[in-house]
Amino acid sequence: MSTQILEAQAGRITPEMEFVAQQERLDPERVRQEVARGRMVIPANRVHLEKGLQPIGIGVAARCKVNANIGNSAVTSDLEGELEKLRTAIRWGADTVMDLSTGRDIDRIREAIIDASPVPVGTVPIYQVVEELDGHIEEMTPQQFLDMVEHQARQGVDYMTIHAGVKLEHLHLTVNRVTGIVSRGGSLMAAWMMAHRKQNPLYTHFDDLCDIMRQYDVTWSLGDGLRPGSIADASDAAQFAELEVLGELTRRARQRGCQVMVEGPGHIPMDQIEMNVRRQQELCDEAPFYVLGPLVTDIAPGYDHIASAIGAAMAGWYGVAMLCYITPKEHLGLPDAEDVKQGLIAYRIAAHAADVARKRPGAQDRDDALSRARFAFDWNEQFRLAIDPEHARRLHDETLPQEYFKSAHFCSMCGPRYCSMNISQQIRDMAQQGQLVTLGSAGEQSDSET
Amino acid sequence: MSTQILEAQAGRITPEMEFVAQQERLDPERVRQEVARGRMVIPANRVHLEKGLQPIGIGVAARCKVNANIGNSAVTSDLEGELEKLRTAIRWGADTVMDLSTGRDIDRIREAIIDASPVPVGTVPIYQVVEELDGHIEEMTPQQFLDMVEHQARQGVDYMTIHAGVKLEHLHLTVNRVTGIVSRGGSLMAAWMMAHRKQNPLYTHFDDLCDIMRQYDVTWSLGDGLRPGSIADASDAAQFAELEVLGELTRRARQRGCQVMVEGPGHIPMDQIEMNVRRQQELCDEAPFYVLGPLVTDIAPGYDHIASAIGAAMAGWYGVAMLCYITPKEHLGLPDAEDVKQGLIAYRIAAHAADVARKRPGAQDRDDALSRARFAFDWNEQFRLAIDPEHARRLHDETLPQEYFKSAHFCSMCGPRYCSMNISQQIRDMAQQGQLVTLGSAGEQSDSET
Repeated sequence: MSTQILEAQAGRITPEMEFVAQQERLDPERVRQEVARGRMVIPANRVHLEKGLQPIGIGVAARCKVNANIGNSAVTSDLEGELEKLRTAIRWGADTVMDLSTGRDIDRIREAIIDASPVPVGTVPIYQVVEELDGHIEEMTPQQFLDMVEHQARQGVDYMTIHAGVKLEHLHLTVNRVTGIVSRGGSLMAAWMMAHRKQNPLYTHFDDLCDIMRQYDVTWSLGDGLRPGSIADASDAAQFAELEVLGELTRRARQRGCQVMVEGPGHIPMDQIEMNVRRQQELCDEAPFYVLGPLVTDIAPGYDHIASAIGAAMAGWYGVAMLCYITPKEHLGLPDAEDVKQGLIAYRIAAHAADVARKRPGAQDRDDALSRARFAFDWNEQFRLAIDPEHARRLHDETLPQEYFKSAHFCSMCGPRYCSMNISQQIRDMAQQGQLVTLGSAGEQSDSET
Repeated sequence: MSTQILEAQAGRITPEMEFVAQQERLDPERVRQEVARGRMVIPANRVHLEKGLQPIGIGVAARCKVNANIGNSAVTSDLEGELEKLRTAIRWGADTVMDLSTGRDIDRIREAIIDASPVPVGTVPIYQVVEELDGHIEEMTPQQFLDMVEHQARQGVDYMTIHAGVKLEHLHLTVNRVTGIVSRGGSLMAAWMMAHRKQNPLYTHFDDLCDIMRQYDVTWSLGDGLRPGSIADASDAAQFAELEVLGELTRRARQRGCQVMVEGPGHIPMDQIEMNVRRQQELCDEAPFYVLGPLVTDIAPGYDHIASAIGAAMAGWYGVAMLCYITPKEHLGLPDAEDVKQGLIAYRIAAHAADVARKRPGAQDRDDALSRARFAFDWNEQFRLAIDPEHARRLHDETLPQEYFKSAHFCSMCGPRYCSMNISQQIRDMAQQGQLVTLGSAGEQSDSET
């Protein structure tokens, strides 16, 4: 069986590449080139494609993408709740979803999500392994993990986060961290390595894993098991030691015909974000970078969607290909559907701002259309173009007396008397009547007089 | 009467400079130097000082500050509502407030705000002038404006936004803009100039204004009447033509013994923010830059506090001294107390992230303390250190079953089985027992075996 990258390298443009090219306003040949060199991935498991997946391209040449994590945990949520989160995520513009379920019913929830999802679905297979082992990660055999990856690939999972880059010799680098290891997958592999005193089996069996992934064209998402969990730990030796391994694994996976993206932090102060992106691009041969946030401060639990949207927008501008959203519940609890919405809105803003700053084709069109509607006092058009039309309309209606609504050529911020838009219109009228040209020279004369 | 800048230039450290130095963990002599060269302002009207103002320093050497705009409009709000907004603003960390009232009772509201406010209060005097003229700005005489500035200075206003930089010869530069002139003050001056076909009287009477400001040590906030109101209009000829005039006025005000800061946009795509900050620093001889947002996209009405917190954080990192917050109501209506809170939280996050990225003294301490509490599962300490303790606690309690609460060494995101923090603790224990050192070498041997 072939994969997108193998097809691209053979010079063939697949239907998925065609589809992506159309979505992104790119030439299909350009998409093929990006996929061939590994700078763009199209996570599209052939099983999910048959079930109606609409492929997307993730890479610096394409629009900045947003992933929404959903999934239940051992202490909360159920199938219907997860499907509601999926619908919410799609409604608010998730480009991919990750099902991070860890509790009971893990297979049933995943199948339902894949069946219902038009967007690529990602997973972290180690969660189901440890669930089946009733929490005893140390009992895992490498074969069990391989079997789990095959099982989930058969279900139609489009990309998988696998923490193959955390190595035994890295663990001591985390000892003096403020927050140790914060990746669940990373810490599970650490626990396994400590119990066995052996190298990470996902690293030692990497080629076998590649062979399974290739069969279904499951895209690698190389997990960053040692990502920093606090500003204090950002850009430390542990993080970058793992990143080097991820670069090595990127090359090995590509050599075996697999598509690869690379995951990144997490918590990074603003002054280190560009350096982190550049370093990943160099070490991982431009593989699409998929970052979690990053949070630019640790002091905002309850508002981490905002604290991280700042870092995410900057990362997207610097060239990150996909942003994993963070919801207001981050660090506090499992997000519900409303949290999913709030996280996605913050991240759609971040990703769009990145597209505008990178001048991606057509990115600014919606900004300009909304601004034109704003200048023309076309409230309905402003609401229609807004990222959340109902919310914008509600806030507007809250403060403006009903009789003015809709046709009002002002809003409650300023009232009619101070409306700068009205005055701007008068300036235009003067200019059209040819009266503004003379003003420039008048300025010179009247200076210091009036 | 003297001013902070005159005292500083004479080599004297005022009690206000002492106070600022203590707050900022800076040497008093350093504060004096910054004030003397005009890179820091201490907006402290002597009248407000007598009423209990706690002075702050605004400048690149100090913590990044946040201003909250409050004030009623012609169509909504009243005195008690404005005082509630003031209390909300102070509670959530506003470093200054601007009273932008434009409706009835403008004097009574301002006096009540100044009496009640421990933080500097700013105004835009032209709003009251046009109120008294019943909207007929063209009837304003220069003397009326001078009298209004003196009137408000006597009330104790600490800094005033005055749009003296919009000149007659700039107006035609706005004609082809998508959103024209969006500054209320700027458009009022444009209307005056068009009616009279004469130069901006605030420009022609600038020296007279300086003389009034100096009497009370009211700090100039040179308004940016031609700031862009959309991404499309960012960094255009009109904006930068005015900025050059603001540079000229900065020098003139300093020569007359006044403190000066300079206002900036507004709407700027991420890739232009650094250039905008550098340009202001050059043209305005490093006068503290005080920016509104900036918004990095126009598509998020209802969430503009988030869309602008991205730009604000970046601006702060690049060296902006004060951020004017934007609430969720921006572009839609007049903010209420809850909007004030949401705007301030987004901007405290942005300003703090800027302080961390600039490595200001002690800025990261709170991040580190919260991260340590996080690693230690000290939930109460995490809530205490959070930017909004009650909100963080509520989100946490929402999803975690009650019996676990407070003492739980995990949260509902992962449950106990997947808690990476617990595993990290085990790694530490191993390291303390000297068992981790051997792991590095074991890694080499077991590679490709397990």
